[in-house]
Amino acid sequence: MAEVRFMRRALALARRGRGHTSPNPMVGAVLLKGGRVVAEGYHRRPGAPHAEAVALQRAGPRARGATLYVNLEPCVHTHKRTPPCTEAIIRAGVKRVVAAMKDPNPRVNGKGFEALTKAGIEVEVGLLEAEALRLNEAYVKHIQTGMPFVMLKVAMTLDGKIAPSTGQSKWITGPQARRMVHALRARVDAVLTAVGTVLADDPALTVRFLKRPPRQPLRVVIDPELQSPLGAQVFRTPPPTLLVSRRPLPEALRRQGVEGLMFSTRELSLRWLLRELGKRGITSVLIEGGSALAGRAVAERVPDKVVFFIAPKLLGGKQSYPAVGGPEPRSLQDALPLGQMKVRRVGEDLLVEAYVEPSGQGRFSSSTFMMRGLGGACLRVDSSTQV
Amino acid sequence: MAEVRFMRRALALARRGRGHTSPNPMVGAVLLKGGRVVAEGYHRRPGAPHAEAVALQRAGPRARGATLYVNLEPCVHTHKRTPPCTEAIIRAGVKRVVAAMKDPNPRVNGKGFEALTKAGIEVEVGLLEAEALRLNEAYVKHIQTGMPFVMLKVAMTLDGKIAPSTGQSKWITGPQARRMVHALRARVDAVLTAVGTVLADDPALTVRFLKRPPRQPLRVVIDPELQSPLGAQVFRTPPPTLLVSRRPLPEALRRQGVEGLMFSTRELSLRWLLRELGKRGITSVLIEGGSALAGRAVAERVPDKVVFFIAPKLLGGKQSYPAVGGPEPRSLQDALPLGQMKVRRVGEDLLVEAYVEPSGQGRFSSSTFMMRGLGGACLRVDSSTQV
Repeated sequence: MAEVRFMRRALALARRGRGHTSPNPMVGAVLLKGGRVVAEGYHRRPGAPHAEAVALQRAGPRARGATLYVNLEPCVHTHKRTPPCTEAIIRAGVKRVVAAMKDPNPRVNGKGFEALTKAGIEVEVGLLEAEALRLNEAYVKHIQTGMPFVMLKVAMTLDGKIAPSTGQSKWITGPQARRMVHALRARVDAVLTAVGTVLADDPALTVRFLKRPPRQPLRVVIDPELQSPLGAQVFRTPPPTLLVSRRPLPEALRRQGVEGLMFSTRELSLRWLLRELGKRGITSVLIEGGSALAGRAVAERVPDKVVFFIAPKLLGGKQSYPAVGGPEPRSLQDALPLGQMKVRRVGEDLLVEAYVEPSGQGRFSSSTFMMRGLGGACLRVDSSTQV
Repeated sequence: MAEVRFMRRALALARRGRGHTSPNPMVGAVLLKGGRVVAEGYHRRPGAPHAEAVALQRAGPRARGATLYVNLEPCVHTHKRTPPCTEAIIRAGVKRVVAAMKDPNPRVNGKGFEALTKAGIEVEVGLLEAEALRLNEAYVKHIQTGMPFVMLKVAMTLDGKIAPSTGQSKWITGPQARRMVHALRARVDAVLTAVGTVLADDPALTVRFLKRPPRQPLRVVIDPELQSPLGAQVFRTPPPTLLVSRRPLPEALRRQGVEGLMFSTRELSLRWLLRELGKRGITSVLIEGGSALAGRAVAERVPDKVVFFIAPKLLGGKQSYPAVGGPEPRSLQDALPLGQMKVRRVGEDLLVEAYVEPSGQGRFSSSTFMMRGLGGACLRVDSSTQV
């Protein structure tokens, strides 16, 4: 079907904005007339014109009578920096709009389609909806729940270890896997780590080794008792860091541009922290910590997706650090169920990506948001293994 | 190349004997004349005719002037139940012999080719040698080192856990993976477990759920202090069990057909045990234990191959049982390096198979046997991922 091809093109255009559009969604648009592409566009960054506006402007009078393929419902709201796309589409004389999905933003959420239909434009919704939902999974979750989309990253041996009991952890995986972690960081709004990792590895947690200069994610460091050294890389290097602590932020760190976020509970709730980050417009978080933080995240059931790099080696050792430590599960039934597993080879290592499944036992799973509110669209985009 | 096709056919025929030929190798033979297959054969079990003999008998006078494709050097030795194949080949008037590999058995080891060449038969060696070595990896290791080929099987969550600290471990993986374990057992001469697994799971460790009635492997149970209950399934069910203990075998167990193997060292050496099994004609062992046995195996560096079933779930927990526990590694450099990783989907689970790499640091690795004595043939059969 030719329609699929144009929607795929719109999705590919949208993807060009990856890592730069947040908190906005990634959107791509294709204008088709007489079987030929008249103009294309994508949303580059917040404040820049929307994909539809870019395509319409490029098309000029050729937009009249054209079909618009776009991966998200065109916006109808005016309280933002750019004019509503529905108006531009109507004004340009577009005949038909094919959108992959409704915009879950309550300011749009069907009103865009309504405005277009009222103006006599033919509207179709749902073409490649699953792919469109997947592409903007962070935007969708954030707009629906106020919480960021959470990815848990782990680099471990095949037997699930990240370090011997002595703590040495550099490097488990190979250079390609490590470079891929930088690409992952470039896609998210924030990277979350904890004091143990700062003390053990002193990581910078910045995006490096990429061709295109990326937007650096906010670094969030959990350090309840302020044990991190002032000279740690997360404090010394440029992008801002948010220090989450039970104690007030030291003046010296404030002067270095570090921001503080205090909590007063005995134990930090990751759900609380993620909600706070969501309030600050953080739509996606990459958890890159050690055994304890990963264990905490799994116990609180906060990840939406897991990204496991697996090195071809066995470390063994009852006391070695497990990839996922933390609080004790009571039984196997407490395990976090994963689905839509994909496996790829990355250099010598394997990369296993999977989504957290909505729990069958009525327990809350943060990824259930996916399944509601969007016409019941199911997100099993790809159940086959990719290599 | 047509030659490759006939050797592949010989390998496929050989494979039909899988699980039934030990301690003999699996061998298949194809007789070709005028571009057409005249007869085929394979070795069914010890004492039955060799593959070459089967094919030659079926061919009768049509063997004259034919080419014989066989995955192993034809035998030349007479101290066994069947006459030497070289004589039969010469007598039948075969013109040319294409063999995949030399037989590492010191009684053959080139003498077969020599006898054929002397009789004026054209001999070629090395076609699909890597595949042939792989097929008979257990036979090759046992004949060269006296030790069985060791596979370590693990069924774990993606984060490398086999049970919560409470010990419950049924079931981590799905029914397809569990059925595949039975197929694995049917391929080996012995299954090795330890008292912890007997106490926790009371497994039968027999081969079940297969269409073709298999040969049951010897069950070897390590139980230094005789803690296993007399009524354990490994003692009650038919195939013989070997109980490895510091204490003498109780009379009650002897009457049930159980055999005892005593050791007197403070800790059991798996290397010693495997050597003992090798002496008893055991060419292959599947380790199916818990955290401690797997850890011990990795620490003693005995596995040649690992077979990891990975369930799509995260268990977490610092105290949960790791897939590979045991003694502490001092550093990441102590990790057992794996290579030739293959990944497949088995039901909902992943199956990762890999070979232990000969260590780069001069440490002994049991799989180095592969690399010597066979004309330096390298066993990197398949570095691509299979799904």
